[in-house]
Amino acid sequence: MTLHRKLRMGMVGGGKDAFIGGVHRIAAFMDGEIDLVCGAFSSSPEKSKASGEALYLKPERCYGTYQEMILAEAKLPVGERMDFVAIVTPNNMHYGPAKMALEHGFAVVCDKPVAFTLVEAEELAQIVDAKGAVFALTHNYTGYPMVKQARTMVKAGAIGKVRKVVVEYPQGWLATPLEGTGQKQADWRTDPARAGKSCCMGDIGTHAENLAEYITGLEIDTLCADLSTFVEGRPLDDDGNVLLRFRGGAKGILFASQVAAGEENNLRIRIWGETGGLEWHQQEPNTLLVKHLDRPTEIYRTGGGYLSPIAQFNTRTPAGHPEGYLEGFANIYRNFALALRHKLATGSLSEEHANFPSVHDGVRGMKFIDAVVESSAQNGAWIKV
Amino acid sequence: MTLHRKLRMGMVGGGKDAFIGGVHRIAAFMDGEIDLVCGAFSSSPEKSKASGEALYLKPERCYGTYQEMILAEAKLPVGERMDFVAIVTPNNMHYGPAKMALEHGFAVVCDKPVAFTLVEAEELAQIVDAKGAVFALTHNYTGYPMVKQARTMVKAGAIGKVRKVVVEYPQGWLATPLEGTGQKQADWRTDPARAGKSCCMGDIGTHAENLAEYITGLEIDTLCADLSTFVEGRPLDDDGNVLLRFRGGAKGILFASQVAAGEENNLRIRIWGETGGLEWHQQEPNTLLVKHLDRPTEIYRTGGGYLSPIAQFNTRTPAGHPEGYLEGFANIYRNFALALRHKLATGSLSEEHANFPSVHDGVRGMKFIDAVVESSAQNGAWIKV
Amino acid sequence: MTLHRKLRMGMVGGGKDAFIGGVHRIAAFMDGEIDLVCGAFSSSPEKSKASGEALYLKPERCYGTYQEMILAEAKLPVGERMDFVAIVTPNNMHYGPAKMALEHGFAVVCDKPVAFTLVEAEELAQIVDAKGAVFALTHNYTGYPMVKQARTMVKAGAIGKVRKVVVEYPQGWLATPLEGTGQKQADWRTDPARAGKSCCMGDIGTHAENLAEYITGLEIDTLCADLSTFVEGRPLDDDGNVLLRFRGGAKGILFASQVAAGEENNLRIRIWGETGGLEWHQQEPNTLLVKHLDRPTEIYRTGGGYLSPIAQFNTRTPAGHPEGYLEGFANIYRNFALALRHKLATGSLSEEHANFPSVHDGVRGMKFIDAVVESSAQNGAWIKV
Amino acid sequence: MTLHRKLRMGMVGGGKDAFIGGVHRIAAFMDGEIDLVCGAFSSSPEKSKASGEALYLKPERCYGTYQEMILAEAKLPVGERMDFVAIVTPNNMHYGPAKMALEHGFAVVCDKPVAFTLVEAEELAQIVDAKGAVFALTHNYTGYPMVKQARTMVKAGAIGKVRKVVVEYPQGWLATPLEGTGQKQADWRTDPARAGKSCCMGDIGTHAENLAEYITGLEIDTLCADLSTFVEGRPLDDDGNVLLRFRGGAKGILFASQVAAGEENNLRIRIWGETGGLEWHQQEPNTLLVKHLDRPTEIYRTGGGYLSPIAQFNTRTPAGHPEGYLEGFANIYRNFALALRHKLATGSLSEEHANFPSVHDGVRGMKFIDAVVESSAQNGAWIKV
Repeated sequence: MTLHRKLRMGMVGGGKDAFIGGVHRIAAFMDGEIDLVCGAFSSSPEKSKASGEALYLKPERCYGTYQEMILAEAKLPVGERMDFVAIVTPNNMHYGPAKMALEHGFAVVCDKPVAFTLVEAEELAQIVDAKGAVFALTHNYTGYPMVKQARTMVKAGAIGKVRKVVVEYPQGWLATPLEGTGQKQADWRTDPARAGKSCCMGDIGTHAENLAEYITGLEIDTLCADLSTFVEGRPLDDDGNVLLRFRGGAKGILFASQVAAGEENNLRIRIWGETGGLEWHQQEPNTLLVKHLDRPTEIYRTGGGYLSPIAQFNTRTPAGHPEGYLEGFANIYRNFALALRHKLATGSLSEEHANFPSVHDGVRGMKFIDAVVESSAQNGAWIKV
Repeated sequence: MTLHRKLRMGMVGGGKDAFIGGVHRIAAFMDGEIDLVCGAFSSSPEKSKASGEALYLKPERCYGTYQEMILAEAKLPVGERMDFVAIVTPNNMHYGPAKMALEHGFAVVCDKPVAFTLVEAEELAQIVDAKGAVFALTHNYTGYPMVKQARTMVKAGAIGKVRKVVVEYPQGWLATPLEGTGQKQADWRTDPARAGKSCCMGDIGTHAENLAEYITGLEIDTLCADLSTFVEGRPLDDDGNVLLRFRGGAKGILFASQVAAGEENNLRIRIWGETGGLEWHQQEPNTLLVKHLDRPTEIYRTGGGYLSPIAQFNTRTPAGHPEGYLEGFANIYRNFALALRHKLATGSLSEEHANFPSVHDGVRGMKFIDAVVESSAQNGAWIKV
Repeated sequence: MTLHRKLRMGMVGGGKDAFIGGVHRIAAFMDGEIDLVCGAFSSSPEKSKASGEALYLKPERCYGTYQEMILAEAKLPVGERMDFVAIVTPNNMHYGPAKMALEHGFAVVCDKPVAFTLVEAEELAQIVDAKGAVFALTHNYTGYPMVKQARTMVKAGAIGKVRKVVVEYPQGWLATPLEGTGQKQADWRTDPARAGKSCCMGDIGTHAENLAEYITGLEIDTLCADLSTFVEGRPLDDDGNVLLRFRGGAKGILFASQVAAGEENNLRIRIWGETGGLEWHQQEPNTLLVKHLDRPTEIYRTGGGYLSPIAQFNTRTPAGHPEGYLEGFANIYRNFALALRHKLATGSLSEEHANFPSVHDGVRGMKFIDAVVESSAQNGAWIKV
Repeated sequence: MTLHRKLRMGMVGGGKDAFIGGVHRIAAFMDGEIDLVCGAFSSSPEKSKASGEALYLKPERCYGTYQEMILAEAKLPVGERMDFVAIVTPNNMHYGPAKMALEHGFAVVCDKPVAFTLVEAEELAQIVDAKGAVFALTHNYTGYPMVKQARTMVKAGAIGKVRKVVVEYPQGWLATPLEGTGQKQADWRTDPARAGKSCCMGDIGTHAENLAEYITGLEIDTLCADLSTFVEGRPLDDDGNVLLRFRGGAKGILFASQVAAGEENNLRIRIWGETGGLEWHQQEPNTLLVKHLDRPTEIYRTGGGYLSPIAQFNTRTPAGHPEGYLEGFANIYRNFALALRHKLATGSLSEEHANFPSVHDGVRGMKFIDAVVESSAQNGAWIKV
């Protein structure tokens, strides 16, 4: 039993000059399952209106604040009001709209990290659980079909017990003091008041952490971190190297950097187990290398008939039609839509449909940020995550 | 001056089991500029209804035939009726709906090849020109930003006068007699009654031809072809090797295959000029190799700040977020939408907005098919395109 | 039964400024099986002496001409005189020393193409056969272990009956009129009096031809060629595109270029059969891609325990220690040395040891050159090889 | 002033079943500058004789022990006796022959690590310095031309001040308890009595350390290590993750593994500075990626005319002829030979010719091993190298 109509999305943030708001919209629109019906796109009501109009929204549904939006939409008739809120604001502005939306009965898609502090994250998780709400966190890299394939294979024992994980996310865009130039993305990410206690680790280190735990199914137990700030005057880390120990004995390395000059989004993970290994690169996401002890490495490819059902389900085209970042991101929206339809039709959550990152992944991310910052402050002491 | 509302699309073909229909819809939806409002999705009215319903269409706008759709939509008020028709049927079903749509004043997006025969193609071109209609042909590979970058660079003389072009499109999906198994895609493509006089060259050889002419800005003058049918009993070619001579003196090779076992969509082009070379692979479309006489090869990447304005305009995300087949395809829809808005607002065509393959590209494609088939029939005689 | 001592090499050509002479010496020395004992390194006796001295030869064994060398060495006692001659001169200087060496009972290693004309080549072949001589032609690319692996796999049916071969060899070093600058390599290769009737096809097209026939075990039956000279004033071809038809029904493409700006030695071959495909690139020679109809592509690697005995035998180090051009070249010398030891010990030839290109491969190469030149002269007529 | 004759090498170790001995011989022979004249190839005099005979040595110069060899050779006339000793034994057998050879006036090429303990290494360094001896350590990866290019570029400021180094060396050959199977290479490397206090870090971690310090010109100041033994019962580490802090402020990561199932010798280094980055992979050693802040990444290639003189000097063939592990290794021998010729001719050392790893690099390596083992024993405390 499901609900047969397009779902209605309201958006918080994502006005002009924003980056991730546009990504969320493409991801939501791509599969023809979701319409944007309203938004509070900016802290300035005028900008919000202008952004909404550019998106072909009705003027009366372009709100000045998220509070206004949630209250107004909650009063609309069931057949008209938004079904969920997508939150695409800086980190310090996740908790407020998420909490309020949940409390008014709306489902939520929230950008990562889920909140500004661990306390906020845990409170959100409690509300989501208490309400049985549908809540998706856009750790988008787990939306790639080959990442899902990797997870399936590790679970099925394809590489034996995991021994070692190396996950890395070098970027170069903050190699110079870009935040001094009026670039908005750089601005808020390097500002402790908006980004939180970490820049590099909060922004991309958490992606790496989430990817490693997702594919291996293992939790990081303790870690030892050495964070750096290479660009003078920057108040937060722009680089970090971390040793990992997973529950169950696997070891690992995680590093992230925003000052790796010349790098784009070179997220990459390698996992070695007792009988084989896996390797995946975000910049060529349709390839998964599968390594063996005594046989040639195999090149698994998106669309291959030999892939797991979950990988195939999260692919839109046959092999050879490269899918990318936006399709991976859209998989979160598409799977969230399936879960929300089920919830709206039946009133209950479904394990089967919950194939997207949850608020609990968000809590893990906040614990990871806290741990790396604390370990680094203690000169690399091993800290429990 | 432009038109500020979502554009309304009607679709011909693209029901269940179709491949390219779904691609067109994703491409049309992605940017939030186009709504699907009606369709004649199948030759069976029941199937058409079912397909339309699955796409959340109103039942009264799911038509049994394209004729019915065009007539009915033409009668709807201006603020409601479709703006353009997307044609995603097998080759033998392009001409009919395209012609009728044009004659009723609708713009058209048509899958390639543009028609079943050159005569049909030329008639469509005449109508388009006569009416000043907005018509896009989905030779989608030219939608990739790095292909546009390559074209810009050749035009700007970055590699000097072009000397040699090698373009290739190996696939392996028809290495076995798949058409005997009920696979619909294989079925119609190997059937002369629906595909036309060529299978491999018509389906993918034309993409290679279009890509080569698009990037170099050169027209193939004459060619010498050796087509093959490797799978027994198949009535059309499933492989072909072609020597090219371009107007102006460049030479080239084009090959396409559907029996290259183990290949996906390995479309690749290499161009060498007097002072440098370019290389692009569809399966890793965000990279363009730029070669020089005496300096290191450079890796141009989608999203790079050094790219041409047209490449940047056709990109949705910053460098490092891989864009793929669907985004390249969507660029045709997005640019078509810009042109159509301009036309609807001003009544006239705009050079500036016509950044997508035209009906004249479609005529070139049909001439190419005719030429390769004739050359091969004459044991490789040089034939004028 | 074999001969237990180092073999003694005399060299014709390979003085200062030469390229391939130094390669032959490294290839001969690498395995500690061969000593250089004498040479006629240059047409100038002074240069020959100087070159020999630089190579630590005794002055009395640095000869002024090859005739002098062969006559003098033939008179030396068996325990002292050279065992074989390595000929590393321009094409027009292969026949003379080869014939004379053979007639005086010396084995021969000869650079390719084997001779200046087909007539010369056939005469050499006749002498070699009549004498049961050990003669190696340095079509070095077949010395790579992964090329031998590919041949073994095709023979064993790993990809089914071969359908299509694409072999290519683009270089860029002659993209400008380098022969006008005093560069010796460019000088003689573009000179019909020294290179023969073809520059590009003779120099590197023959490598491509040899590689294709070696791996597939198929002979090119007929071909259709379009040769070009892109650099003005050059008397020979510097580029060529060729369609191939193999005996047994396979089709193919061969192209070679010396004006592909920015290319090094991008020799590459792809072969597709009924059930799979193979792909090998000279510039990353330790990888062989093995493609399948319904399974992931496999990455075969030099040194892998799963490789054929012949591939393993032609490898010096374990997997992960990249071997290159010089090792591939050295395999010809090493295998030639095995054959020559056998011959010297037993007086007879051994099939088992003859794992290197022969004079008959050289005859094939000359026929190939004749055919492409003739086909191109006849505007692409199909010509028998 | 130099010495014009082939140099004479004696070898310690490297008999049948050995791996690295054969590599040293190829490296020594390749350039025709060095002859093998004697050896003590095995601890068994019979095996030593047999090995020497297989290498075409005179029986009287196949010695039973290195002591015997050094004493006997020292008594031979100057024009006959060996010039240097190559030591290719397990780690515990480096110090003895190295010390004795030096004390008898012979130059030395020694495999790495230079000794069994730091104390031994420091004593050797003292002797080398006191005697002004020519001593090369075969940290062969710095012999690759593109590694030399990288060092030159860093020194010249091509990437600005170095910020971050990531160096890694995953292998998979010890993923299973291979040492229980009679495999000699696995046997001694996992045996503390022969390998020393570390297996993985001593064998390949030191290569990574040496490579990082060589290219950056920076010394590791302190490190924090987490070593593991994944294969049960193995008495030494088979994997290790290390955080690095360089003098001057750069940070880094070094990891090595012998249990990374499916890996060959995947040594890789990435370095990022203030204005760019460098990336080199041992398995495709002819490519060096050069990254920039705002321009496309460049692909530097062995043989390119734009490379530094030192890179060009250490290359044997033009671009496009892949050079590999053996050529890189041979560069150490070739450069050692230049230095030794100079020493033999002039009696003094020459800075200019000392382009190979020294005994002091060996001391660094031993300090590195001590530091990682100690840090790991202290649960990742930061330890001074």
